[in-house]
Amino acid sequence: MSATVSATLAEKILARACGREAVRAGEILTARLDLLMMHDSGGPRRVASRLEKLGAKVWDPNKVVVVSDHFVPAVDMESADILALTRKWAQAQGVTHYDMLGICHVVLQEHGHVQPGMFCVGGDSHSPSGGAFGAFMVGMGATDITGALVTGEVWLRVPQTTRVQLDGVLGAGVSAKDVMLMLCGQYGMGNEGQVFEYGGSAVQAMPMHERLTLCNMAAELGAETGIVEPDATTLAALEQAGKPFHGDLAQWRSDADANYLHHYRYDAAQIAPHVAAPHSPANSRPVGEHGKVHIDQAYIGACTGAKLTDLRMAAEVLKGRKVAKGTRLLIAPASVAMTAQAAAEGTLATLTAAGAILLPSGCGACAGMGAGMLSSGEVCMSTTARNFKGRMGSAEAQVYLGSPYSVAAAAVKGEICDPRELLGEGA
Amino acid sequence: MSATVSATLAEKILARACGREAVRAGEILTARLDLLMMHDSGGPRRVASRLEKLGAKVWDPNKVVVVSDHFVPAVDMESADILALTRKWAQAQGVTHYDMLGICHVVLQEHGHVQPGMFCVGGDSHSPSGGAFGAFMVGMGATDITGALVTGEVWLRVPQTTRVQLDGVLGAGVSAKDVMLMLCGQYGMGNEGQVFEYGGSAVQAMPMHERLTLCNMAAELGAETGIVEPDATTLAALEQAGKPFHGDLAQWRSDADANYLHHYRYDAAQIAPHVAAPHSPANSRPVGEHGKVHIDQAYIGACTGAKLTDLRMAAEVLKGRKVAKGTRLLIAPASVAMTAQAAAEGTLATLTAAGAILLPSGCGACAGMGAGMLSSGEVCMSTTARNFKGRMGSAEAQVYLGSPYSVAAAAVKGEICDPRELLGEGA
Repeated sequence: MSATVSATLAEKILARACGREAVRAGEILTARLDLLMMHDSGGPRRVASRLEKLGAKVWDPNKVVVVSDHFVPAVDMESADILALTRKWAQAQGVTHYDMLGICHVVLQEHGHVQPGMFCVGGDSHSPSGGAFGAFMVGMGATDITGALVTGEVWLRVPQTTRVQLDGVLGAGVSAKDVMLMLCGQYGMGNEGQVFEYGGSAVQAMPMHERLTLCNMAAELGAETGIVEPDATTLAALEQAGKPFHGDLAQWRSDADANYLHHYRYDAAQIAPHVAAPHSPANSRPVGEHGKVHIDQAYIGACTGAKLTDLRMAAEVLKGRKVAKGTRLLIAPASVAMTAQAAAEGTLATLTAAGAILLPSGCGACAGMGAGMLSSGEVCMSTTARNFKGRMGSAEAQVYLGSPYSVAAAAVKGEICDPRELLGEGA
Repeated sequence: MSATVSATLAEKILARACGREAVRAGEILTARLDLLMMHDSGGPRRVASRLEKLGAKVWDPNKVVVVSDHFVPAVDMESADILALTRKWAQAQGVTHYDMLGICHVVLQEHGHVQPGMFCVGGDSHSPSGGAFGAFMVGMGATDITGALVTGEVWLRVPQTTRVQLDGVLGAGVSAKDVMLMLCGQYGMGNEGQVFEYGGSAVQAMPMHERLTLCNMAAELGAETGIVEPDATTLAALEQAGKPFHGDLAQWRSDADANYLHHYRYDAAQIAPHVAAPHSPANSRPVGEHGKVHIDQAYIGACTGAKLTDLRMAAEVLKGRKVAKGTRLLIAPASVAMTAQAAAEGTLATLTAAGAILLPSGCGACAGMGAGMLSSGEVCMSTTARNFKGRMGSAEAQVYLGSPYSVAAAAVKGEICDPRELLGEGA
């Protein structure tokens, strides 16, 4: 038997981070961090006093990224003070990467911080987003983040990898969000201890923004994280971010005979737009199966629904159309840079001409902290990742989840509908 | 002696509204309303229960305009509930003009609600804005608004008129905001019982958005209201709003020998950009006299600072430039329609390319309720009308007021500076 053990991409990254030749799923190990990300909600305001009590400093301020995205821009004194505390703490610790210009998961990739093969943690449950770049990135709470900040290490149990194979081509009006809602509907939220690895020609054809959505929503499957094997698209994105990848790409692929827990295969062309009913992403069904549902608020925002490609999807539907009377359409682009790009290329003009109300970049209503909160009895359709009860305001509000295509279409019709009807693909 | 009494425009409007031939300054009279405007902060949530107790209804729902602008879009449950209450109350009362797509003073003019010769009240201190259209419009608190809603009448003491004559042409980089800050600096906030009537070639040359700023900030002079004699520019704006004026324009001018309390005359070309120091608009001086003041936040927003023409002024300064490191530039266009116009014409692309962070349309941080609140010790330069202590967040924050030119210039330099330097007019 050869000494070389077949491994998945996730296992290869963890082996490297633990200084080992190979790791086996189920092993408990300690791994060294390449990057730690925190935001203003779970970050300095939670960890600063703990570090002070310990008399400890950040293990490596060059490997820490702090992003203010939950309380930005400040809407009250409390949020103004949290922003000031976050900024000052980052300065005091010598953290070189501080930002307040977008949602952390998006800002990370805009700056090329996450690279193939990296082992990273983030103080946010949607940190699996980093997997889009072929990194292993997991979310942790503020207590674990405190330990990681001090030691530069975290312990973990090596997860099993589940492969999701998307062959063929996604239809018009169908996006990564639909894929994830479909998976949530099929497999529920109980996939603990697994890495979801997404591959196949439909994934290879996806721009990085779509891959971010795939990996991000591994959190909605209850998985440890999500990952996509890096390729030319990944390299181009890092090049564009000004942080070209200098490693060996061939190193960061799953072996052909790697050991998968599950191997789910789909014909991408057969995937319909999916919509999740309240109050779980797992309540997802093809869009046509929801009956007549009036929408008070259409919300295009968050890390899984308001990146530049998401805004373009919405614009495809909204071009030359108007938001229905009795429905409001709120759009919070995922970052300030993407807002500028959308403005420069005309996408913002299309969206606002349709009657969209622009909101500031940040986590906003998705995190229950920004513009777009719902009152009792209101029905919202949203591009966000989650529709847990009360998350976007009143516990008596109803939130449906869909792709930017589906949410834009609902804004035009005033009710849930198949976006392909508006793209001339007639369901 | 002729029976005709010389009168100012304000006196003519009040005479008509009282059903009299003429009125004299100082008389106490009751006038019939042509329009009543309320917003979500001082409106339904304050008056609904009072009307209910009285068993009364709105005197004429076609003459009432309700605009949600303070709590829009909802940032928490309280604001979501206020928005829902406002919308439902307007529906229940049969109010035909309900809106949530911009700041009330701006939305009123976008829809052509305020017409020359009208007598109007608004449940907001900046209601004098309506004077830009040659109407007499005053602000009132919720108690007075309740009475006006039921009776369709208000009592008032006829104010004296003070004429501000701006002859010649304003210099490049100088705007209506500078005129008003200059007047606040010279005459303070104690001009009670006066109507400020603005005229002269510099006013005639102003677009409606600039006239709105003149009239709006009559509130900062402590005046009853502000007014501009309607002209071809007024008519064109009403035409564009889809509400052409059918009256006799010649009727709504001050007589040549009208009796003014004061008659202030200025050579417009001599007016410098003005900036008001904390904590009063009356602390205004020419921009060059403020010394070196670092700016943490530049805020372009509110009814006096984020209309389309204001955004264009900012874009003139920001074109091809970047916001200074250590300074954040927040821009909240005054209405959703103006956001769409700014997006369509490229103004938004210029602003966002410079690094501006877009905020939703509404009263926002100006009213201390939206994105852009300040933490202790922070310094903000703002296009808003007021810089009262604690209004934009912490009472330990410092707010300077300036025109969109001046605020954009401060954003680029990171400190207060003469915007004419950036427009190539070198101070």
